[in-house]
Amino acid sequence: MTDSQFSTWMRERQSATEAALDRILPGSHIAPQRLHDAMRYATLGGGKRVRPLLVFAAGELASAGPRALEHAACAVELIHAYSLVHDDMPCMDDDVLRRGKPTVHVEYDDATALLVGDALQTLAFQVIAEPGLMADSARQLEAVTLLARASGSRGMAGGQAIDLASVGQTISREALEVMHLHKTGALIRASVQLGALCGDVPPDALQALDRFGKAIGLLFQVVDDILDAEADTTTLGKTAGKDAANNKPTYVTLLGAPEAKRLAAELRAEARSHLAAFGDRAGRLTQLTDYIVDRSF
Amino acid sequence: MTDSQFSTWMRERQSATEAALDRILPGSHIAPQRLHDAMRYATLGGGKRVRPLLVFAAGELASAGPRALEHAACAVELIHAYSLVHDDMPCMDDDVLRRGKPTVHVEYDDATALLVGDALQTLAFQVIAEPGLMADSARQLEAVTLLARASGSRGMAGGQAIDLASVGQTISREALEVMHLHKTGALIRASVQLGALCGDVPPDALQALDRFGKAIGLLFQVVDDILDAEADTTTLGKTAGKDAANNKPTYVTLLGAPEAKRLAAELRAEARSHLAAFGDRAGRLTQLTDYIVDRSF
Repeated sequence: MTDSQFSTWMRERQSATEAALDRILPGSHIAPQRLHDAMRYATLGGGKRVRPLLVFAAGELASAGPRALEHAACAVELIHAYSLVHDDMPCMDDDVLRRGKPTVHVEYDDATALLVGDALQTLAFQVIAEPGLMADSARQLEAVTLLARASGSRGMAGGQAIDLASVGQTISREALEVMHLHKTGALIRASVQLGALCGDVPPDALQALDRFGKAIGLLFQVVDDILDAEADTTTLGKTAGKDAANNKPTYVTLLGAPEAKRLAAELRAEARSHLAAFGDRAGRLTQLTDYIVDRSF
Repeated sequence: MTDSQFSTWMRERQSATEAALDRILPGSHIAPQRLHDAMRYATLGGGKRVRPLLVFAAGELASAGPRALEHAACAVELIHAYSLVHDDMPCMDDDVLRRGKPTVHVEYDDATALLVGDALQTLAFQVIAEPGLMADSARQLEAVTLLARASGSRGMAGGQAIDLASVGQTISREALEVMHLHKTGALIRASVQLGALCGDVPPDALQALDRFGKAIGLLFQVVDDILDAEADTTTLGKTAGKDAANNKPTYVTLLGAPEAKRLAAELRAEARSHLAAFGDRAGRLTQLTDYIVDRSF
């Protein structure tokens, strides 16, 4: 697939995700209006939709149907959106800017932000568990539990807890990797798995895709750390340099920028190696891997 | 069933719920330890487990299997526990006492309380979606979405948002009812439905049980309002009189205590009427209804 075909594919899937989220989120006119308005504010009209793109790319490789993929894509994006709303709150990272707009607790208030995150998480599970979404209901239950495990205390929320505990600490590269494999990696990895689960792939292919998902999960965070250190706030759409300001360990503070970039290159090569057996069918996943890296340098 | 047999049944089901929650919640020794420790603190060793008792009572009427009921009971209690942790936070009700102990954000910190609530909600969906829990996977997906609808922005979280918006307002009895049907009622109603879904009941019986669930959901809140106004903090295990202190409308402030008590009696009678067709099989649900009322007067 040429770069231009890939760009078209990305835009189409981003639009499909946006349209599906718009349909799934209750309208701002439905009571309680302020909550629904804030849920839409937190979710719509922003973000690169990397996780949904991974769901679609893995799902299309697995010949999954469009409706199941759309729901799975929305579910991971709703989990991601909820985590951003809560992470930005004053008692966590206390951030005022996200996707180029004031964060939810700034635009609304802290109590609303708390409820927005709560309700977005609930909606994610409602969307992925919709009866009849997949022909095989037992497989769909596996998808629901996969999303729950990736999001909970031994996945994303757990990574956030490790992150909190590491503020101001000197931690090892291994500890940093454990944190990121949970905080960012778990949901990215789950996105790839969910896409594949929506379709039909043999167990060894599912395992290769999972290794790919784990590698790009870490890759995504290494690139994020480099961006946070090097890009400006306008480019990022969120406050740049905030990890350093918050005294948080990152790959850049731990390894230095040149070594962090070398690590990113290494992880990209590793990710691609897990796709080798799929040949051309993994073209979009390969290009998404490049996209994750090239948004920075 | 005699009062003593009912008391024994209640104690047994409360113990079964406690044991199942203890098993389901990750151990305090598992990383991230502080988060897991706080999740256990928030959930174990307290509460009357009214929602799990409703799951069991409705489920046993529907001849449901014990394992599915145990998971459904834990799922509703985990949702309830998450909502308490978040509701007590400084940006919401700012309360320091719950179930006779310091609230989670007081015992740990605000950021941990936020993550505890988040992770308890996730765990609820993981528990109810466990593959193979019910023989009929499609029916189990219905159970997952039922729990999600009852908990989200058009259920419990929505009720909390209405509650926030009503502070310091004069609202009508109808508006108060709408708030409580969501805030407390939705999860109580879902508990009855979930118990029934775990077993097998014909559609008209399910509908009668749902009407029963709706009536006791409201009944529970009316009694709660009376308790909040009349009982002391030690009896409640949470701060008494806090609704009045927070300038929140309640059935007592709106109708006065005598009229609120009359309403409770009326709702109890209505709840019982929906059980009439079940005869003796609904004995436990009838006794639970009395238990909900008699904890106050």
